[in-house]
Order: sequence, then structure tokens, then C-alpha cells
Amino acid sequence: MFDRIPSFEKLVTELNKLPGIGPKTAQRLAYYILRTPKDYAQELSTAMQQVHEKINQCIQCFSFTENEEICHICLSSGRDEKILCVVEQPSDVAKIDSSGVFRGKYHVLHGSISPLDGVGPDDLKISALVERVELGLKNELTQIEEIILALDADLEGDTTVLYLAKILKQRGVKITRIAHGVPIGEDIDYVDQRTLARALENRVDV
Amino acid sequence: MFDRIPSFEKLVTELNKLPGIGPKTAQRLAYYILRTPKDYAQELSTAMQQVHEKINQCIQCFSFTENEEICHICLSSGRDEKILCVVEQPSDVAKIDSSGVFRGKYHVLHGSISPLDGVGPDDLKISALVERVELGLKNELTQIEEIILALDADLEGDTTVLYLAKILKQRGVKITRIAHGVPIGEDIDYVDQRTLARALENRVDV
Repeated sequence: MFDRIPSFEKLVTELNKLPGIGPKTAQRLAYYILRTPKDYAQELSTAMQQVHEKINQCIQCFSFTENEEICHICLSSGRDEKILCVVEQPSDVAKIDSSGVFRGKYHVLHGSISPLDGVGPDDLKISALVERVELGLKNELTQIEEIILALDADLEGDTTVLYLAKILKQRGVKITRIAHGVPIGEDIDYVDQRTLARALENRVDV
Repeated sequence: MFDRIPSFEKLVTELNKLPGIGPKTAQRLAYYILRTPKDYAQELSTAMQQVHEKINQCIQCFSFTENEEICHICLSSGRDEKILCVVEQPSDVAKIDSSGVFRGKYHVLHGSISPLDGVGPDDLKISALVERVELGLKNELTQIEEIILALDADLEGDTTVLYLAKILKQRGVKITRIAHGVPIGEDIDYVDQRTLARALENRVDV
């Protein structure tokens, strides 16, 4: 858009790095930032620094929190400490919590096992999960009776489910995973064959 | 996504102000910024400040430039100073220049007359345009022989064309506007009736 204005091009380059923001959108955003009073660029800059400065990982479940060490879910006394829901990302915690069905505690792995991307079990918060289970067995924490695996329904998620099931079952914990099937409100016509196969296998009594 | 994390919500709010960025996209971008090393937030912040600090309006044509006063197009001696192309936005200058057909100089109005939005002639760079014409008449600048109006093909653009034609014609300048018609490569089937009507009225000999 402005070939001869290096500072404009630099802003477009930086915006272009954001996910889902192509070169055209980056130009439009840069132009908006240039035409808007300087205060906005200042506010947005401050907000970006603040998320890095204020947000920490909870030292127990590894979700995000502005608390110093332990997040408000781990601190909450109104939740069932015997059930743990294991998720891939901090954003999954809020997503599952908003369903209103689960009232236990969480554990965030920060990814899933992906040999192709060079992500192995040691790159995830798996040893910390095993430790939470073992501290329960030693009665130093509430004993965990069930671990629900709520991982993505892809190859990496499946690999991680198999790995976790193997190392956790031998510690005597019940391992479950969330159901895969036809989404609520969906027309059977639009559901892919693998989902339909899984929905049939996992049929429930009515 | 993270209801209990004010700094995250604040960043989402700020990103949501950008054009075309809805709440869902803002959340996704905020999450990316949080998960990416702090350097990126720093780079983007700096780039935003820089466009405000380094980019000025050219004091002659009011386009954007990193030059102190006069932009590289106004400074260029290889362009026809007798033809002026009037556009609404600085971004239109590069757009028209990239067509390769126009080799005159530019004048940016910074908007168009829009009574509904409270934008009158005095809010635009119109008196500066009249001054450029009059300095030419007094031989203090090269005399302008033709002014091409390349404004948006909407109600505000049309209003501005009528206004400019009225005040500039009485100063003896030839006023033209860019043609409206069927876009190149477009199927007649997809062209709206008003465009087609205009294309018929403005038909040219072959």
C-alpha cells in the first residue's frame, strides 16, 4: 500500500505474523492504527505487555492465572478433588468449565504427544500429573479416583490418550475419555464416516 | 476464554477495536500473543509507535510520507505537474500509481463530503487544493490544466465531485472524473443495474 514508507511496511510485517492475518488484512489493520489517535497504539501495546507480565502458570494445574502461584480453580474448596480433567491447553479449561457439567479439578498438559513435531512426553506436563496421582496415593493430597482425558480428537490426542492410560492405569486410577459422536443439533447427513462409526460403537441405552 | 484473568480480557477488548476483528478472533489473537515469546509483543508495540512517530502528512499533497515535509511524489521532477489527481485517502495514491497510467501529481482530501456524518468541505483538504490551483494562476507554481477526480463511487464521492467541480471550474481548470463501468474481466451477468446503466451512458467508440 505504501511502498516507500518503511515504518508502515514494518508494522504490516509484524501484524502479518498473527494467526489468520494475511498480508491484505495486515495492511488494513496497519492503516487503521496509523489513522487512529496514538492513544490506541499505546493502549494496545500496554495490554500486550501486561498479559506477559501479569499472567503466570498455576504451579499445580498449569492453567493460566493472574494469581502468584495457585489459580482460583485449584484454590476453590467447592470442587471435587477426586476427579481430574486433563486437557491440552489452558483455553480448554474455561471451555469445559462453561459446559457446567464438570465440577472437579483440572490438569493442563500444554500440548499433546507428536513425534512428527518432536514433542515427546517429557515436553508436556505429564510427570507433574503422575506426581499429583502419587501424592494422592501417599495421602499427601486428596486421592484421585478418576482422570477424564479431554484431549483433541486427532492423531496426537489419541496417541496421548494411549500413553497416559498406560502409565496411569498401573497406578490404580480409573481413566476415562470424553465421548466422540454426532454433535448436538447436527444432521446425520453432514457427519463424517469416522465420527458416525465411533457414535455407533459408543451407542448408549435409552 | 479466561473469564477470571483481567489482563487477558483487557487485551481482547483492545484487539476487538480493530476493523474486522470480532470477539472470537480477538480472543485467538490474544491467546497467540500470550503464548508467543514476549519479544513479539515488544516488536509489534514498537512498530505501532513508529508509524505514529515517523509518518507525516506531506505539506503539499497531504499523502503520507516519512520525509520531513514533502513526499517523494511531490519532490519528483519526472512527473507532469499540470495534471492533478484528487483522491480521498493516502492509500488511494499508491493504488492509482500502481496502475502505471497516471504520471501527474496527487492531492489527498482525507475523506469526502458527508452531511450525515457531519463532514463538510472545511473538514477536508479542499481549501489547500484551491490554493494550489490559484498559486498556479499567479504563476507562483506550475499552472494546473486538468484535475482528475478519483473519488469513491458512492453518494459521498458523488457529492464531493459536484462540489469540487463547481468551485474549481470557475477558476478555469478542466475537471474530469474517472470512468465508472463494468470491471475488466467481469461477466455482464454479475454487474448491478446502476453500473450497467452508467456503462451504457458512457459508452465509447471502438
